[in-house]
Amino acid sequence: MRPLTFLSDYGTDDEFVGVVHAVIARLAPEARVIDISHGIPRHGVLQGALTLARTLPYAPAGVHLAVVDPEVGARRRAVALRTGEDRLLVGPDNGLLLPAAERFGGIEEAVEISASPWRLEPVSATFHGRDLFAPVAARLARGEPLAAAGAPIEPVELVPLDLPGPRRDGAGLRATVVGVDTFGNVTLLADHGDLAAAGLRIGDPVAVSAGGRDLRAVYARTFADVAPGDALVYEDAARLIAVAVNTGDAAAALGVRAGQVVALAAP
Amino acid sequence: MRPLTFLSDYGTDDEFVGVVHAVIARLAPEARVIDISHGIPRHGVLQGALTLARTLPYAPAGVHLAVVDPEVGARRRAVALRTGEDRLLVGPDNGLLLPAAERFGGIEEAVEISASPWRLEPVSATFHGRDLFAPVAARLARGEPLAAAGAPIEPVELVPLDLPGPRRDGAGLRATVVGVDTFGNVTLLADHGDLAAAGLRIGDPVAVSAGGRDLRAVYARTFADVAPGDALVYEDAARLIAVAVNTGDAAAALGVRAGQVVALAAP
Amino acid sequence: MRPLTFLSDYGTDDEFVGVVHAVIARLAPEARVIDISHGIPRHGVLQGALTLARTLPYAPAGVHLAVVDPEVGARRRAVALRTGEDRLLVGPDNGLLLPAAERFGGIEEAVEISASPWRLEPVSATFHGRDLFAPVAARLARGEPLAAAGAPIEPVELVPLDLPGPRRDGAGLRATVVGVDTFGNVTLLADHGDLAAAGLRIGDPVAVSAGGRDLRAVYARTFADVAPGDALVYEDAARLIAVAVNTGDAAAALGVRAGQVVALAAP
Repeated sequence: MRPLTFLSDYGTDDEFVGVVHAVIARLAPEARVIDISHGIPRHGVLQGALTLARTLPYAPAGVHLAVVDPEVGARRRAVALRTGEDRLLVGPDNGLLLPAAERFGGIEEAVEISASPWRLEPVSATFHGRDLFAPVAARLARGEPLAAAGAPIEPVELVPLDLPGPRRDGAGLRATVVGVDTFGNVTLLADHGDLAAAGLRIGDPVAVSAGGRDLRAVYARTFADVAPGDALVYEDAARLIAVAVNTGDAAAALGVRAGQVVALAAP
Repeated sequence: MRPLTFLSDYGTDDEFVGVVHAVIARLAPEARVIDISHGIPRHGVLQGALTLARTLPYAPAGVHLAVVDPEVGARRRAVALRTGEDRLLVGPDNGLLLPAAERFGGIEEAVEISASPWRLEPVSATFHGRDLFAPVAARLARGEPLAAAGAPIEPVELVPLDLPGPRRDGAGLRATVVGVDTFGNVTLLADHGDLAAAGLRIGDPVAVSAGGRDLRAVYARTFADVAPGDALVYEDAARLIAVAVNTGDAAAALGVRAGQVVALAAP
Repeated sequence: MRPLTFLSDYGTDDEFVGVVHAVIARLAPEARVIDISHGIPRHGVLQGALTLARTLPYAPAGVHLAVVDPEVGARRRAVALRTGEDRLLVGPDNGLLLPAAERFGGIEEAVEISASPWRLEPVSATFHGRDLFAPVAARLARGEPLAAAGAPIEPVELVPLDLPGPRRDGAGLRATVVGVDTFGNVTLLADHGDLAAAGLRIGDPVAVSAGGRDLRAVYARTFADVAPGDALVYEDAARLIAVAVNTGDAAAALGVRAGQVVALAAP
């Protein structure tokens, strides 16, 4: 029995997550299910994809179910993928699964499951997590073969993910917000190398700005390097650059949320 | 060992849900526990009852614990019920369990557990989930007999649930909001047949109104049938009628929450 | 295989909790993990410590992981403790674990795990839950010996917890808010004996005040003793004194949150 992980933008206010667990428990009563996160911003395919890629390496190899699916009910395909390192990924064909697949050595087998024989009939137009993705993930966890889940497709046919990388901007860098955590820490799609290329070094002051608001930060190693209430730029646990206010809320201070652009520069 | 499911209005901000899990884990260490939802609106017996009835058919047969209990500490009874299809339901005697029991073929055995020999002493006045419902559910999951949980009562003695069904109103329909999900989608206690009886057909425009606010919607099959930002009326995954705004928030647009009434009519 | 419990201030909006579960599932695939709460107020070491102490007695003996860690990345130590009743506690050395340890008969063995051989390298500066605490907890759950987790230290060297107990104030009592639950119920660090010492008895009216706002309450046994909308002071399920408004929100009415002081007196 393979373990399962589950990530979505369903939130935990209603029963969507619980019903997916229920369907899995019927079909694979012995499988362990690990909830990675259900707090992905609604329809945040990019944030979901990045979260999946940075968290799955910590999880046991198994079946990795992910549902961030703005086009549910439309013509987007549903897919199940086998990657290197024996990981199985299940979700919509909208790029959500691709960064994680790359981390695990790329896609070795892809199956379109939109009309999977394992789906629960009637498939609702709005809740494929329950009617399609959960039964496919559960049967894969039981060890049923991927090829039986649907029709084979070529990995190159999969819809790619649009990754808004950092851009140099004069003496600084413009980077996209890809996540805001509970604490208001702002994660950017940029890494230490990007800041180094823009001339910013650990210990330097950094001017952080977004939509007319500014924050004077230090490029630090950790929160404790700055006083409470002071801002810092740092490499977070996923090796992405983040902006924080020690014991404060950087997202509120900058007025930013996922998808917006933040500028970093020497002051 | 039977699987357990657990639904409540406890939310996840504090430790109520965790302590119930802890009590179950002590008494039934091998039992799987599936959280259906803990986001039922506070004291929302009707919403809890409907959520339970529409989700439990997806869960494996087992012990189904539900706690939405505005009268905890007062004289309301606590009960455990056995239904057809070998489902056991545990919770307060306030109607919460009845729609689910009906789905499973009705009640075959009912036991009052208010003074159950299995309760944890001293029973607190405010947290029967921990002191009464969790230990009863855990022992039933272990296979101990329902008759040992308390004193037998007649199913007809159970407190009924008041279901505010839809009402015809001139050319249209007035229906009660029974749920608002994370995305602001508004679920009504009405089904496709009710709309058909009011002359509304798939593809028709529908005027949706509540408390002086209006929304121009289309009676559609799925979100993708309308443009982003446009409103739709549709049959949701639980076969209830819902109002949504594609990629928007219908509850905010209408200013409604659970318990309020929404009017639907041909414009 | 020992069961694990897990409490933190991570919230459930992002993937912190999920990643800790993932790490545990890799190292201890058979261990049951019970989430006690992840809604401890951010950096609320006191609230976390009290929640842990009042909930763990309901949980099976095992490994109890707790992470409320405002000084992560600074010099605070990380520790694992063995108490009487064969409980193992894992977390930061900031007082968080001490009230629970006392409940279980005190500390019999303490180990500093900051440089544990079991940690995941490289240890991030900001996410010790994943890189340090989770692997130590998982290996202890598997039955590996505490002494192998790090270097022995004397229990007296542990950082104590500062407990702001109630103070008599003229005819009344001033007590610190240590928790506000989902329903707005306000828990105070005071017990029935403190109220009795201040001359307040069950059935008496109580003037509750905080920051210029007042609430006229009754010292009651349970919610049902007062009318909906009325305020009460009561002993909660953890045997601490709490203030509530029946079907209302006492925290909003008083404008208080954790850490603030509330005065109780005969009117």
